[in-house]
Amino acid sequence: MEAEPERTPEREAYYERIAADSMAPLWEVLRGLVTKEPVVREVPAVWHYQAIRSAIMEAGAVISAAEAERRVLVLENPALRGLSRITMSLFAGLQLILPGEVARSHRHAASALRFIIEGEGAYTAVDGEKTVMSEGDFVITPPWTWHDHGNESSEPMVWLDGLDLPLVNFLNTSFMEPYPEERQPLARPPGDSLARFGQGILPDGYKSKGKCSPVFNYPYARTREALETMRKTAEWDPCHGLKVRYVNPLDGDYAMPTMGTFLQLLPAGFAALPYRSTDGAIFVCVEGRGRTHVGDEVLEWGPRDIFVVPSWSWYRHEPAADAVLFSFSDRPVQEKLALWREQRGNSSARA
Amino acid sequence: MEAEPERTPEREAYYERIAADSMAPLWEVLRGLVTKEPVVREVPAVWHYQAIRSAIMEAGAVISAAEAERRVLVLENPALRGLSRITMSLFAGLQLILPGEVARSHRHAASALRFIIEGEGAYTAVDGEKTVMSEGDFVITPPWTWHDHGNESSEPMVWLDGLDLPLVNFLNTSFMEPYPEERQPLARPPGDSLARFGQGILPDGYKSKGKCSPVFNYPYARTREALETMRKTAEWDPCHGLKVRYVNPLDGDYAMPTMGTFLQLLPAGFAALPYRSTDGAIFVCVEGRGRTHVGDEVLEWGPRDIFVVPSWSWYRHEPAADAVLFSFSDRPVQEKLALWREQRGNSSARA
Amino acid sequence: MEAEPERTPEREAYYERIAADSMAPLWEVLRGLVTKEPVVREVPAVWHYQAIRSAIMEAGAVISAAEAERRVLVLENPALRGLSRITMSLFAGLQLILPGEVARSHRHAASALRFIIEGEGAYTAVDGEKTVMSEGDFVITPPWTWHDHGNESSEPMVWLDGLDLPLVNFLNTSFMEPYPEERQPLARPPGDSLARFGQGILPDGYKSKGKCSPVFNYPYARTREALETMRKTAEWDPCHGLKVRYVNPLDGDYAMPTMGTFLQLLPAGFAALPYRSTDGAIFVCVEGRGRTHVGDEVLEWGPRDIFVVPSWSWYRHEPAADAVLFSFSDRPVQEKLALWREQRGNSSARA
Amino acid sequence: MEAEPERTPEREAYYERIAADSMAPLWEVLRGLVTKEPVVREVPAVWHYQAIRSAIMEAGAVISAAEAERRVLVLENPALRGLSRITMSLFAGLQLILPGEVARSHRHAASALRFIIEGEGAYTAVDGEKTVMSEGDFVITPPWTWHDHGNESSEPMVWLDGLDLPLVNFLNTSFMEPYPEERQPLARPPGDSLARFGQGILPDGYKSKGKCSPVFNYPYARTREALETMRKTAEWDPCHGLKVRYVNPLDGDYAMPTMGTFLQLLPAGFAALPYRSTDGAIFVCVEGRGRTHVGDEVLEWGPRDIFVVPSWSWYRHEPAADAVLFSFSDRPVQEKLALWREQRGNSSARA
Repeated sequence: MEAEPERTPEREAYYERIAADSMAPLWEVLRGLVTKEPVVREVPAVWHYQAIRSAIMEAGAVISAAEAERRVLVLENPALRGLSRITMSLFAGLQLILPGEVARSHRHAASALRFIIEGEGAYTAVDGEKTVMSEGDFVITPPWTWHDHGNESSEPMVWLDGLDLPLVNFLNTSFMEPYPEERQPLARPPGDSLARFGQGILPDGYKSKGKCSPVFNYPYARTREALETMRKTAEWDPCHGLKVRYVNPLDGDYAMPTMGTFLQLLPAGFAALPYRSTDGAIFVCVEGRGRTHVGDEVLEWGPRDIFVVPSWSWYRHEPAADAVLFSFSDRPVQEKLALWREQRGNSSARA
Repeated sequence: MEAEPERTPEREAYYERIAADSMAPLWEVLRGLVTKEPVVREVPAVWHYQAIRSAIMEAGAVISAAEAERRVLVLENPALRGLSRITMSLFAGLQLILPGEVARSHRHAASALRFIIEGEGAYTAVDGEKTVMSEGDFVITPPWTWHDHGNESSEPMVWLDGLDLPLVNFLNTSFMEPYPEERQPLARPPGDSLARFGQGILPDGYKSKGKCSPVFNYPYARTREALETMRKTAEWDPCHGLKVRYVNPLDGDYAMPTMGTFLQLLPAGFAALPYRSTDGAIFVCVEGRGRTHVGDEVLEWGPRDIFVVPSWSWYRHEPAADAVLFSFSDRPVQEKLALWREQRGNSSARA
Repeated sequence: MEAEPERTPEREAYYERIAADSMAPLWEVLRGLVTKEPVVREVPAVWHYQAIRSAIMEAGAVISAAEAERRVLVLENPALRGLSRITMSLFAGLQLILPGEVARSHRHAASALRFIIEGEGAYTAVDGEKTVMSEGDFVITPPWTWHDHGNESSEPMVWLDGLDLPLVNFLNTSFMEPYPEERQPLARPPGDSLARFGQGILPDGYKSKGKCSPVFNYPYARTREALETMRKTAEWDPCHGLKVRYVNPLDGDYAMPTMGTFLQLLPAGFAALPYRSTDGAIFVCVEGRGRTHVGDEVLEWGPRDIFVVPSWSWYRHEPAADAVLFSFSDRPVQEKLALWREQRGNSSARA
Repeated sequence: MEAEPERTPEREAYYERIAADSMAPLWEVLRGLVTKEPVVREVPAVWHYQAIRSAIMEAGAVISAAEAERRVLVLENPALRGLSRITMSLFAGLQLILPGEVARSHRHAASALRFIIEGEGAYTAVDGEKTVMSEGDFVITPPWTWHDHGNESSEPMVWLDGLDLPLVNFLNTSFMEPYPEERQPLARPPGDSLARFGQGILPDGYKSKGKCSPVFNYPYARTREALETMRKTAEWDPCHGLKVRYVNPLDGDYAMPTMGTFLQLLPAGFAALPYRSTDGAIFVCVEGRGRTHVGDEVLEWGPRDIFVVPSWSWYRHEPAADAVLFSFSDRPVQEKLALWREQRGNSSARA
């Protein structure tokens, strides 16, 4: 694909004629349609929790959970303002739920993840089971399952919502249904799904109904302890340190079919090598401090900060102290469709 | 999700303040973001081949294959003009290749299908093997395989190109590379891949390199004959007649990971029941005549006509004679992500 | 595991005491139980069809198909006489069916394959479909499907029966049921399953009921032609020539879950390198002549001859003319259980 | 298959003639070869630990671990004496390891499971990692991994060894290799594999090398606690109570490819309904007391007792107190080969 074809009056006239039949010349748009590398619209960005916390808390005064249905501040990628998304395919927002509030029950085709940022003791009820949440917990609401949230503690609770909404809407597959009552009835005690599916066993004869993990809550305490055990073996990925993915115990695949979720430990002083992949990722700092170089930009982060690394951008992490990062992206989608690519750099690479 | 939250001056002021931090209130957009049913932008449309054939042939005079790289007229959905797509996620176009021309070799991350509309004897070369094409053949160029086309016959050839370009671009996974020469060298005789992979056997020890079928050409003669044998058993799906999907012999999955391809036989007088699914589909009439009711619209079709049924629209086919329809959609994507839905109507349903 | 433990009177007395509680000392049998290499009981053997044909035909006079239920001469491995098997896990026999005869309908948990040795025009009916058979055809009767055979031609027909009976009995999974009538009713025309499942397509929405290929007959003419096309590319496996396996179009796995079936072409003068694997294999020569060296033995073969290569024995083929060999073994079982091993030799190896 | 064919002198003579060619008449053995139901050789049996404990301990005086290589008392099914197996396809034995002893390192193609019966603090080292074992732990040594055992505690330790040796030998797939030294070097701290693979996460990019679970030790404390949480939901299988299977976190399949392992809770007073399946099972009572009716026999059991239920025998459990049973069988083999069958009885059924 070399030079653009010349636009002559004859050609223009022809283009106009065929436009009447809803046709257009591919050769006029080919270079922009079949690009040599991804043309990425999202840009790097960071939300410093200390700076935005008061705005989040103010939301509690601005609107009630009941009126808002979900009191969430959307984190909009600066290059995608008005599109309610943090990357092209993913939604991220911060949800606030105050003591005594309930976010009423509904279900939707979109998958949702919650990553607990601040607070202790609020719950998510999914499919008849209540899950009490703590900071760092990774909680799933699988597609088309009833779910409601409530805060029975005495403190506000804030979590990150990650959803595949832009993808679901792009594919014309959005469905939503409100539950007839504010809360769904509970059929199982807390911890049932973790006991049943998350301890190396499965109920004999269990058949999965979907492609999502039946474990609703991956507690931070457990995952964190596992990382601490693993680090003794001192096998570090040059780009990612010690990085694990949350999995669906039924098949070992990602915990959710559309969003990959990860936790990684970067020891103090670790000098990560540059890396890029076609899935843009959203990171949350759970512990530690550091910076991430993305192309020519530097994103500084500390506890509870959220930052985004765009698709196919070179980046490298530079932890100032032992750091733990949670992240999510649409990598499972890209892998299932055989579209995912990654590239590892060396110390002379750009990011 | 009942009434929209009221917009008060206090709220407006708050929204403006948080906008500075790239945040926005979800509750202002929630109803449009998490919809009860898909909000589909594409509309039904039909391209009558007789009406557009002269425009296609005229393209041969307007530009050469060499200058155009690919001389293709994009079929643009009337509701998505300027976006180079026939549904939200899929590209379709008509490619013309004149006797003696070559469309030079390149490769891209996008998957492409060819469905031969008119002509005989042009070829596609894929991965070192040439496939000579006839009307009704379904030909694949898997992602990231070198491919070039040529016409060594004495007649123009026209085929339908179907690509997953909008999806590939949405996911930021586009890559393209030109081959250093006009044509790739040939390493295998024609028919090798069909013999090797398409006859109920596989080379012992063969390991697949991707998720795409290694059979490049599914000849129409063979598939058509299979339909004719099957129809003797007279098992008709009430909505689809006798419908088969092209498969990857390595795993029985769709022939391509991102686009499902189908062929169906509708006998004369068959009164299909209404049907809808979340994948918008592009149909090509190969044989016969008839009409398809889509919502309140009626699309008339005959040989070589192309029509599109939008996602989640009720439709029903009404063949006036024994009819054979080829179709493709993004259903494999939706199924892999557990997002696909379908619904079958009864005779009183709308379409 | 070095020396055998000494047998002392004290130990003998102890062994006797614990024997009363159905216990025995492992250390007395360990070396024979956990062996360094497989201890194989089956031996190489060949059945020359010309030499045994008259005995087969004589069976037609000795007993009727009706009285015998199945008029089959078991090919017993010379080292496993009385055990009705050709290798430790597999049964092979030659079935004769005379013009006008019917082998009545029944079904069993064991899987059966037929490989047609001599004759033309007899049929197998499986699951409501009749399959007319020709020499070289590979025909399947999946587990627990009704099947009967009949000969409507004017010539006797002989085929090789291969069954997993020893394995099925070892695992305590044998079931058998006679059909209430001599023949099952037919529900589909001949060729239906091949059209429906064996031509690169699958009926949309088809769900498999088992793990066996729904294609009952893999015609020799088709497979043979595919081999002839493939050989043009001249990619020869140093041990196997051009070897393909029959596959289940639903998943690309072996055509049957317990028996792998293969066809291979060895061009005249091909000097195969030695090879061994843990699955003992039964070969049938379809075309050509040659010899196979198995350890220190030489098995000469020509058309319709049957020979067996024991598990883990070095062997190499030496075709005297273009040769085609059909073969089957329990390799799928071993692979599914992660037990299969193979080894490739060089020209100095033993066989 | 009705009456046996008559044996006439002519037929006898014929049988003798064809015997010379290693052929035999199928119709003489058909009824015993293709049986209507499994013909099961193994019988029900129970080993009461109190009764045999002194014999086990006496083994420590009879032979050293070093001389025995593995000091194991084989539990031989009373109907299969001399065949070193507890069911047709499985081996079971009780291994004793005294304080200070080491059972030296080797590897074999057979898979082994350990279920700890008595003692605390001995270890198994597998693939460079040491696992310290407690009563009720289920420990795996995957095929072809180096493993050695040692007892660094001050008490004798006894565990149940379960191996697929009869199956591995039947299939001619036995391989064994001694490690050049008594113990393999350790490369990972204890708990590494459980942290890495058994906590709902997997190392990003991890590729499995086999089909066996990478979790070597499934601690009893954890599984037992999960059962206790699950029982609150009070969903009881009418035949099995609350039964879970140990799984491979990489794919959700059984923890081992050839042996299924299970733990089940039967509450006091639970009156199980009769059940049978084609996999003969070995049970170990971990907690509680009760009896199991197998056909007309009654097996009484208490802590540490081991009993076997033959293939396709009706049985029902009758716990006298809250009971926990561990069990294993070849069910994964049968399922992978599509041979497994089960049947559920009602209260009037025999067992």
